[in-house]
Amino acid sequence: MNIILLSGGSGKRLWPLSNDIRSKQFIKIFPTENDYESMIQRMYRQIKKVDKDAKIIIATAKTQVSAIHNQIGYDVEISVEPFRKDTFPAILLAASYMHEVQKISADEIVVVVPVDPYVEEDYFKALGKLSKQAEKGEANLTLMGIRPTYPSEKYGYIIPKSLTDISLVEAFKEKPEKTDACAFIQRGGLWNAGVFAFRIKYILDRAKVLLDYTDYDDLLQRYDSLENISFDYAIVEREPLIQVMRFAGKWKDLGTWNTLTDAMETHIIGDAITDRDCENLHIINELSIPILAMGLHDVIISASPNGILVSDKEQSSYIKPYVDEISQEIMIAEKSWGGYQVLNIEKESLTIRVDLKAGCRMSYHNHQNRDEVWIVIAGSGKTIVDGAEKPVKMGDVITMQAGCKHTVIADTGLKIIEVQIGKEIFVQDKMKFELGN
Amino acid sequence: MNIILLSGGSGKRLWPLSNDIRSKQFIKIFPTENDYESMIQRMYRQIKKVDKDAKIIIATAKTQVSAIHNQIGYDVEISVEPFRKDTFPAILLAASYMHEVQKISADEIVVVVPVDPYVEEDYFKALGKLSKQAEKGEANLTLMGIRPTYPSEKYGYIIPKSLTDISLVEAFKEKPEKTDACAFIQRGGLWNAGVFAFRIKYILDRAKVLLDYTDYDDLLQRYDSLENISFDYAIVEREPLIQVMRFAGKWKDLGTWNTLTDAMETHIIGDAITDRDCENLHIINELSIPILAMGLHDVIISASPNGILVSDKEQSSYIKPYVDEISQEIMIAEKSWGGYQVLNIEKESLTIRVDLKAGCRMSYHNHQNRDEVWIVIAGSGKTIVDGAEKPVKMGDVITMQAGCKHTVIADTGLKIIEVQIGKEIFVQDKMKFELGN
Repeated sequence: MNIILLSGGSGKRLWPLSNDIRSKQFIKIFPTENDYESMIQRMYRQIKKVDKDAKIIIATAKTQVSAIHNQIGYDVEISVEPFRKDTFPAILLAASYMHEVQKISADEIVVVVPVDPYVEEDYFKALGKLSKQAEKGEANLTLMGIRPTYPSEKYGYIIPKSLTDISLVEAFKEKPEKTDACAFIQRGGLWNAGVFAFRIKYILDRAKVLLDYTDYDDLLQRYDSLENISFDYAIVEREPLIQVMRFAGKWKDLGTWNTLTDAMETHIIGDAITDRDCENLHIINELSIPILAMGLHDVIISASPNGILVSDKEQSSYIKPYVDEISQEIMIAEKSWGGYQVLNIEKESLTIRVDLKAGCRMSYHNHQNRDEVWIVIAGSGKTIVDGAEKPVKMGDVITMQAGCKHTVIADTGLKIIEVQIGKEIFVQDKMKFELGN
Repeated sequence: MNIILLSGGSGKRLWPLSNDIRSKQFIKIFPTENDYESMIQRMYRQIKKVDKDAKIIIATAKTQVSAIHNQIGYDVEISVEPFRKDTFPAILLAASYMHEVQKISADEIVVVVPVDPYVEEDYFKALGKLSKQAEKGEANLTLMGIRPTYPSEKYGYIIPKSLTDISLVEAFKEKPEKTDACAFIQRGGLWNAGVFAFRIKYILDRAKVLLDYTDYDDLLQRYDSLENISFDYAIVEREPLIQVMRFAGKWKDLGTWNTLTDAMETHIIGDAITDRDCENLHIINELSIPILAMGLHDVIISASPNGILVSDKEQSSYIKPYVDEISQEIMIAEKSWGGYQVLNIEKESLTIRVDLKAGCRMSYHNHQNRDEVWIVIAGSGKTIVDGAEKPVKMGDVITMQAGCKHTVIADTGLKIIEVQIGKEIFVQDKMKFELGN
């Protein structure tokens, strides 16, 4: 099975755990044997479990690449959008990559799967069936339709021509009023889960008609100028021959705190204590300080270095305009090599803790407008400062003037306190260099 | 007027803003023109406003001295208990200090006042009357009785012989059941506010009978071995000739989050946003990250570097056993010279931010088991390291091996990132030295 795993989205609705650089699929909330996994980790693992030979390509924007490497590792194919676009350009880019770079035949089927529903193994088995159904060539597009569990007003509906498991599609209906939703359900209407199976050739041919481009590299070059349009609008709505496959298993959209906590198996993640009078309370605490909750009902508490949310669960779905008011300074970030957390902010200084995974390194870079000091607080490795290599261990202090090129390479897991000093401290003040002379 | 201001107590009930080293009277929650003031600042200011010549001595334990200097300044008399004891030894020590060190005549009246009720100016005018009443010598002890506003089960009651404003005391009743409380109130019973006026001589004479000591210095020497007993038990309950003065003005005991927030004039202190559906919500946020609260009713949210409390207001009075479960690591401290905050904890390293007020210095000290690195992140001053003085400014790095003596003196307000490195890092690993050769 070939899968394009769509990993998009920004994260205002799950603030403070998601934000401009950490989308909701990277929040670790699902318990595993010793730890917690994120939506993307869970889905990647589930696909591989059901089909160990599945060829997965993650279609995403540049800003998520580090987090994906951090959570899934380096042994993963990623189709990186140079600019964030809607689903049509993103899917097309990934399909082109599959065909031209990965040399997958254009006659093969690919299944497009969003990264964020909460599902079980039966869902991935259904994806396999969907792929096989598409293989038959009875339609140009084969969609998965979720059997509705209530007349939701926030999903799109697929109206099938018949009530069979596989049916031609009669119509699509966008987010209906409740009465219409009830009527759709009575007619066998299904939720559109954003899962599409098609022959790679189909999308490449359609794109050649719609867009003026020659090949993958050309597409990448022109990406910025491509129309920002959804796959539904560009392809699905214009295609007369579509089949839908009914899926009646577990499928949950975890887009709000209310739905997300609904899918959580534990009530508390992180350091927290509750009294006996708490009911239907969920706490996710990513801070290193304890939370004590007393006498709360139907509440979500979510804390990270970016901020603290305390909300009635129902109310939490209206979070977006409030988060818009809050400064989205990035206080914590996962990188392919580890991550960092902001510890202190002053007018002309910033202090962060940098964590490198064993064997990893940050890029060789410099800054124009700030000096930096590193103090190694755990582990060992080596630094390269203006070309000079030096082993470092706990307690070592490295000072770097603005302009000086530097990197650090972790032998063991390595932790560093980095103090940045300068009148203008911006993340953007960073120039990367090739290592070696 | 001579006043012994009793500043005792630890702070579990107002966790996380109070803790083992910061009692509730140091939490800044009362708005002033530009800032917030604490209970102790408020009370000190109020006394001075009503009687600018009042001689105030603050009776407290060693652990609070730094915080008192930080909040009230250095121009304040403090009677420091070498060990924390109950009110009888603490009051006796302060009275001895007044008489022997401050040379206040033993014939003068002193009024003992707890630091933590929330009161207005009329309370301090009443203290003046109480002092004058005690001066008349009609009784050995003159107490203030608060007119009850409800049949509380958590206060002690004073039963007067008559219903006049000043009356002899018939009996004391400890924390009664509600029906008894109602009966006491019908008989004119008053809450015991812990305010006592007496001639200094009276307490010194009584103490000489009860304890074997010669003078103030001797008392200080023997302090550890003194019986740990309350003033009520040691003195009040054994004294037959007591008067009580009725006080009907505002008096609030701010011992729990519920009562404390009741006295707050603003609903939000610190960085926080609430939606329109929040009702009777109070937020005190001492963290540098924002809090967003949605759809909460009758809730207190209180956040500091020590932890985060989210509690139903009623429920918050049962906080103590839960706080007992929480590690009371000190994450933030106010010192006479400024303060510090813990930013990061590793197994063998601790990173803190040290803030010095302009003109202030920390003690000249060393550590046996840890190295330290200072990076100046704001301001300027000078360091003395093993006797060598050096000016420092933003960006300067100072490294200190274990054993090396050091201090820093702030010219302007000075901020330092201090990284401690060592296998065993304890606050106690600190030896102080005199400066100079």
